[in-house]
Amino acid sequence: MHPSEYKGKWKQLKTANKSIHLEIGTGKGQFIDGMAQQHPDIHFIGIEVAKSIIVSAVEKVKETQRKNITLINEDAQDLSDLFENNEVEKIYLNFSDPWPKNKHAKRRLTYHTFLEQYQRILKPNGELILKTDNKGLFEYSLVSFSQFGGILEDVSLDLHLLDDPFNVMTEYEEKFSAKGQPIYRSRIRFPRE
Amino acid sequence: MHPSEYKGKWKQLKTANKSIHLEIGTGKGQFIDGMAQQHPDIHFIGIEVAKSIIVSAVEKVKETQRKNITLINEDAQDLSDLFENNEVEKIYLNFSDPWPKNKHAKRRLTYHTFLEQYQRILKPNGELILKTDNKGLFEYSLVSFSQFGGILEDVSLDLHLLDDPFNVMTEYEEKFSAKGQPIYRSRIRFPRE
Ligand SMILES: C[S@@+](CC[C@H](N)C(=O)[O-])C[C@H]1O[C@@H](n2cnc3c(N)ncnc32)[C@H](O)[C@@H]1O
Ligand SMILES: C[S@@+](CC[C@H](N)C(=O)[O-])C[C@H]1O[C@@H](n2cnc3c(N)ncnc32)[C@H](O)[C@@H]1O
Repeated sequence: MHPSEYKGKWKQLKTANKSIHLEIGTGKGQFIDGMAQQHPDIHFIGIEVAKSIIVSAVEKVKETQRKNITLINEDAQDLSDLFENNEVEKIYLNFSDPWPKNKHAKRRLTYHTFLEQYQRILKPNGELILKTDNKGLFEYSLVSFSQFGGILEDVSLDLHLLDDPFNVMTEYEEKFSAKGQPIYRSRIRFPRE
Repeated sequence: MHPSEYKGKWKQLKTANKSIHLEIGTGKGQFIDGMAQQHPDIHFIGIEVAKSIIVSAVEKVKETQRKNITLINEDAQDLSDLFENNEVEKIYLNFSDPWPKNKHAKRRLTYHTFLEQYQRILKPNGELILKTDNKGLFEYSLVSFSQFGGILEDVSLDLHLLDDPFNVMTEYEEKFSAKGQPIYRSRIRFPRE
């Protein structure tokens, strides 16, 4: 069965009526697994385009036997095929590929064409949380969110200084913070008329 | 003559009809003097509350004989007494006091009560440019701007990497960047109905 057949029906999947948090670019799944453990009442859906990478996430979830995770091997460009309007409560972007060259800006997961899709599938006032070590991507994304009409709810320029016990680290986050690089995070609300 | 008597008439002062850029917390005047040199067609007005500090700026301007600078020894809280609506084109906040404790948030020059005054005296779509070395103030200010309805036009998390030949350094900027600290900068537009 193709994941798009669940469009509008994700709440029927897994135990009923859990709210849905979506991670885009799930990688090997450490974040989604840790979050699903921390929040058993939320249904976490992870989208990852690279088959060779998502297999590690699939294996991790098999091991931990987490019931509230769904993994989808698709490109985030097709989000609107996968989700109905208002179906998602939160979106996580973790260490998204920076695409530093201007001519590749369209591929950044915070380019306005992506934001349009996020806004559509998020509930009104739904939130997106971006974490990254990449200065250029973070600078670009804050401006892109703001120009799109998103409201910054929170900005941290050195997340690990906060010592937040609920922060779940991703694979990249562990790697870069071990090198002493600051981790940036922002939480953005998407208002809707 | 009290500066408030120029309210609405700043364009008549100095050579006629120059647009007005306002710096708040001018300190010893290095920035305003450098900017006035770079932009002889703009009338720069600097506000500085501390008499003991503004004297240095006054002396600097005397030395350089810059004609397009006005210095005002007042508190920025009284901006609306000094400027008419729409009288100002740009506002600069350079290394504003961070007031790190939450109970002092009201004193930060990016607290919403200040933003309301800035929006009023700025032309529609006028811009504010904030530079600081202070992580906490920068994080706070980006959120404060966004919540107020300001649009981020630009964000830099390490200004000196850009090697911008038109960047004029302030006293604090020289001091902190010599220590290797990154300098943050943002440019915010204030839309108006
Ligand atoms: C730099 S890795 C970060 C992985 C993980 N989130 C972490 O923080 O450790 C970015 C991941 O996003 C995936 N990705 C990039 N573009 C994507 C897209 N359009 N749709 C889905 N996944 C994407 C990549 O395949 C890669 O696994
Ligand atoms: C940290 S210093 C920075 C000075 C200079 N802008 C620089 O970058 O080198 C902040 C300055 O802002 C002034 N200041 C603080 N609050 C002010 C207010 N409400 N109105 C006017 N000036 C203020 C202080 O007196 C001080 O000179």
